[in-house]
Formats: sequence, structure tokens, C-alpha cells
Amino acid sequence: MDDRICIDWNLMNDFIIDVFEKYGVPREDAAICADVLLESDRRGIESHGMNRFKPIYLDRIKNKTLLPVTNIEIVKETPTTVVMNANNGMGMVASHKMMTMLIEKAKTCGMAGGSIFNSTHYGIAGYWSTMAAKEGLIGITGTNARPSVAPTFGVEPMMGTNPLTFTMPTDEEFPFNFDCATCIMQNGKIEFYDRMGKTVPEGCVTDENGNTMTDPNKILKDMRAGKAALLPLGGPGEENGGYKGYGFTTVVEILSAALSGGPFLKALSGIDENGKPDMYRLGHFFFVINPEFFMGLDTFKKTAGEILRQLRASKKAEGHDKIYTAGEKEYLSWLERQKKGVPVGETIKKELVQLRDECGLTQYRFPFE
Amino acid sequence: MDDRICIDWNLMNDFIIDVFEKYGVPREDAAICADVLLESDRRGIESHGMNRFKPIYLDRIKNKTLLPVTNIEIVKETPTTVVMNANNGMGMVASHKMMTMLIEKAKTCGMAGGSIFNSTHYGIAGYWSTMAAKEGLIGITGTNARPSVAPTFGVEPMMGTNPLTFTMPTDEEFPFNFDCATCIMQNGKIEFYDRMGKTVPEGCVTDENGNTMTDPNKILKDMRAGKAALLPLGGPGEENGGYKGYGFTTVVEILSAALSGGPFLKALSGIDENGKPDMYRLGHFFFVINPEFFMGLDTFKKTAGEILRQLRASKKAEGHDKIYTAGEKEYLSWLERQKKGVPVGETIKKELVQLRDECGLTQYRFPFE
Repeated sequence: MDDRICIDWNLMNDFIIDVFEKYGVPREDAAICADVLLESDRRGIESHGMNRFKPIYLDRIKNKTLLPVTNIEIVKETPTTVVMNANNGMGMVASHKMMTMLIEKAKTCGMAGGSIFNSTHYGIAGYWSTMAAKEGLIGITGTNARPSVAPTFGVEPMMGTNPLTFTMPTDEEFPFNFDCATCIMQNGKIEFYDRMGKTVPEGCVTDENGNTMTDPNKILKDMRAGKAALLPLGGPGEENGGYKGYGFTTVVEILSAALSGGPFLKALSGIDENGKPDMYRLGHFFFVINPEFFMGLDTFKKTAGEILRQLRASKKAEGHDKIYTAGEKEYLSWLERQKKGVPVGETIKKELVQLRDECGLTQYRFPFE
Repeated sequence: MDDRICIDWNLMNDFIIDVFEKYGVPREDAAICADVLLESDRRGIESHGMNRFKPIYLDRIKNKTLLPVTNIEIVKETPTTVVMNANNGMGMVASHKMMTMLIEKAKTCGMAGGSIFNSTHYGIAGYWSTMAAKEGLIGITGTNARPSVAPTFGVEPMMGTNPLTFTMPTDEEFPFNFDCATCIMQNGKIEFYDRMGKTVPEGCVTDENGNTMTDPNKILKDMRAGKAALLPLGGPGEENGGYKGYGFTTVVEILSAALSGGPFLKALSGIDENGKPDMYRLGHFFFVINPEFFMGLDTFKKTAGEILRQLRASKKAEGHDKIYTAGEKEYLSWLERQKKGVPVGETIKKELVQLRDECGLTQYRFPFE
């Protein structure tokens, strides 16, 4: 971490927008994408922020598996529901439009739900549910993804890391925000173990025979070859509840595809039959619930806040002096980072300079130069 | 299991209804409760079926912590939502009324949601979401419960075992039905380890200091004394994703209380300040989603069914020849049991005879007599 330097949030935001625009993304859409990417860095979820700008978005626009102009098609709309075809455009742009619509519907009708198909990576799932919480609503969302998780008693990478995310308003400075993959750990975490030279804990990854793998380097190599798979929350078999994590992952796989009739499981590999990069065709789902249609927002916020405070105040295990609630670490990350800026390491530094030069954005000078 | 004998489903159903009626439950309500209890046995979830008839329902009616007449009060109703006060009556009766209302609302509006407060045990959560699936709708439900689960880095029993349950229609003989507590295991499972003379797997239960406990007998004793707590799915600490299970448990704790403004956490101990049995005042939540307001029920069922079939057909770990999907084991249990009847062991046999004699239901003769 020592080689990291912080870049001003506004500078980085402007830069992302300008680069996206040079890549053909309309300026208004680019602003949405910049905010989603940087929100991830604000929350300390670096795996989904600036780290992904080039490889997951720009490189894919270049290889034509992600279209810079998002031609959103509303396939079906009712007072409470929306089905949207993102036509392989920016998943973040389609999701922003979807949540804007659902928030209005939930304000009017109390409950709203939506699904998007033919989409691409939509950034951190929690961004979308947080849009609801900022309006005093409960947000729920999930997405399918490239197959990498095996079912209980299975070894084949079948399902995505499939986050199931809930954000709820509270009477505190920040919402309750539970935003996690439904498997134990994701690729990014295994790369982290690899960089640190540490072994991966037992029970998180299976080889093709059902044996646990702990060498991160071998895991990454075998996962690329389809010979290793991530395990659902709860681990292998049924003994420690692995079938429960598998159940949650399946819930997300079904909701992401079945509400819109989109593809699922191995059809989401991003590789066509000739081994060439293919469209991702991801599916997402969104539900918004309005507490004003139950016992009121104030009651909801106060009850939620009180539950979280009592959990934090409960007795700690030896060696621990703090109990967190979901979303708290992300809020603390923002408090720490807001004045400092976005931390970037060597890889991102190089990418920034390269993108600046490639796009001819000569007005930008970075603090590490 | 050798001492178990099977009793005809219809005989058992009639008997439960007659006993409940003698205990003051209106006959129509008793029929609902009998069906919920027996559905648990049909699915092979014996912890929530006949095993609970006397201790969790009849004994509580006797000690006045559960009122046999359910005075349902609809506190708020909109076209998409319902808030209900169960007034300490039968949680199963209130939940049946709630789901009946929400199913109608979801058929009309596409989305519906409800919450119940001042309730009591509502049986298997999956019964309620299955009511939706039988009507071609997606059912989601959860409930809080007596505090027994510690948060990550905590040791104090704060949250309930809090199931988060999803049932979805498919094109198969049975729905996808994911119905599980959000902790690794429940009391009933620990009692099972105790009966089998086996140790509980590491990482499922914590003592007051944060150390894992494996002796089921000591666990049961210490849990009664509040000196042991169940751990969330993912186990202790954060390494294997314990904070994710903790997140799901918290989601259920919040939704169960905050939508209706009911009590939560330690207020649900069922014990008053003088150590006397108190009302349970549980909260439940229910969401119903209508696929016809998305891309249609047929699309939903076909997609969901295809996902489940592909998961089952994927490569198995060594030593395993079958991959299950959620709800499949329950369906197989019913296929096996439907002609045989309800299996009952020694404890239930004694209870049945005792209840028959106590209630003067002399027309009943059991096959084991």
C-alpha cells in the first residue's frame, strides 16, 4: 500500500467522464458511470472502483462487448414494474434509469420491481439499493455474472458470484447497506491472497474432484481453465450450511434471468462458441419498498437504527473491541478518504497516464507526475 | 428411527383440529394450523411439525403466552400493502390471512408486501411463500425469533435464527423453495447431534469468550443460560464470510420489526422482567411478486426450471452422485411419505395418547396402541 497516492475526487471524476466521452459514451451517461465507480472507492471497495475502469469498461468498449451508447428499451411497464432491455450498453446507465423509475413508482404505489436483460457489469450492487435508501425507501437488488460458483456437492463453475443486496434507511448518518457476493470470496480476494503470499482459507475453493484448494496462484490459473470453482457461503457439503449459501446464489440466478427471460449459468461466460469474446448479456433485478406504506419512515428508521446500535453494543469476543454493522466500514472509509482523495497504486497510475495520452486530454496533470 | 410408526395423514389432521378446538381455537383456524404443522412433516422438516404441536402451541395456549382466538386487526391497508396486529393469537392464522390478502393484491397490482406484529410462531416460513408459488407468484418471507445468534466478533445471543425464505414457481412438479435459518444451525440440529452422541462441527457455536463449542450437551445447557450463542452462516470472524451470514440475519431482524414498529432482539426473549413467561410479540414480513407483470409466468417457470435442471446435471464432487436444488429433498420426502403417513417417535406417541385422554377424544385409536 505504500506506493499509493491519493488523487482529488473532483479531478478523478472529471477525468473519468472525459475519458468515457472519448470512448463514445454520452457525457450524461459518463457522469453516472463515474459516480458509480468512484462510490466504490469512497466505500473502500477498491475491487469495483478505479481498478475496473480500464479492464472492465474501456477495454470492453474497445473489443465491442460493451456498447458505449446505451439504447435502453422499455419492454414492459406497469404502475409497479419495469422490464428493460439494455441492448448490451452500459449496465450502470440502464440501472440508473431503472432505479429512477422504480423510486417514483414506489413513492406512488408503495412497492415496485424491475428487471434488466442484455446488460453488462452494473458496478457495486449496493449503489442501486442506496439510491432507494437516499429517498427513504428500502432497496433490494442482485445480478447474475460469469459462472464461477459450484453448487453443493458439485465442482463445476455454474453460477455467478451473484450478490444479494439490501439497503435500508436508518436514523443514523449512514444507511444499513448489506452488499455482498453470495459465495465466500470472489476472484479479487484470491488475487489479494496471491499478492500477499498467503494461502486461501480451507473450504472456499474446490478443485475438479471436490477437494479444497488453498494455493491462490494455482486457484487463479485453474479457475481460468474452468478446473476450479468458488464455493457458496457456508463452504463445501452441508455440514456448515453450504447448501444455504448455494440457495441464496440460486435465488439470485433465478431472479436475474427469469423475470426478464434472459440467459443464465454457462450462457454468461462472455465467450462465444469459437472462444472469442462475446456479449455478456447479464440480468439484474431490483425491488423497492416504501416504508410510508407500512408504519411510516420515521418508525422504520428509528427501529432499524436501534437494532444496529444494540448489536454494536453487545458483548465482544476476546481480542475484539468492535462489532460492525453492514455499511459501517464503508461509511468509515468515506470519512477517512473524503479529504484525502482516491488512493491509486502503480497499475492505476500507469493506466491514468496512458489513457490521458491516448485520449489527448492534455489538460490533466496527476499529482504523482 | 426404528421405534417410529406412521400415522395416516387424514387421521392426524382430524386429530390436530379436534385437539386445537378443545384448546379454544376456532375450528376454521385449527384447520389452518393443522395444515401448516403437517406440511412440515410432509416435507421431512420434523423439527417444525408434530414435534412442536404440544410444546410450542398447546403448552403455550395453556400458560397464556399464546391466545387461541386470533383477533386480527388490520392496522393499515393500501392496494399493495398490509400491516396487521396479531394480538398474540396464532401466528399461523394471521399469516394465512396476510398471504391470502397479499396474493390478491399481487394479482391485481404486480407487487405486494405485508408485516405482522404481536405475533407468535408461524410454523415453517416456506409454507407462506409456497402459498404464493401455488398461485404462480414469487413468495418471500422472514420472521424474527427468540435471541440466540451472535453478530460477527460478538458472543451474546442477540438475534433470532431469522429465516429468509424464497419460493418460486417452476415448470417442474415442485417449486424452488429455499427455506432456511440464516445461522449455520438451529437448536433442533444441536439436539440431534446430542441424541446421536456426535460432536457439533467447529465454528457453529461460540462460548461467552468467542471460542468454538462442540459438545452438544454443554451447548444446550449454556444456551439456556445465555452463555453460548449460535453463529451466522459463514462461521466466526470474517475469514470465511461470517459477516455475510450476519448481514442476512440482520436484514431479517430489521424487516421483521421496522415495517411494523414491533419489538426486536432481546425484547423477544419470551421472558418478562420477573423471569416469568411473557408474550412472544414476534414480527414477520411477506413480499409477493407477480411474474405476469414482468415477462410472464410461463417464461419465469421455464427459465427457473432450466436453471435447476442444469445445476443438477453439473459435474459432481467425488463421492457424491446427486446435486439437489432447494425444495427437492422436501418434495422427495413427500413422495416417500404420502402413502405411509406421518412418522412419529416415542415422545409424540405419548403426547398423542395424553392429549386424546385429556381432551376426551375417545373416538381416536392410534395404530401403535
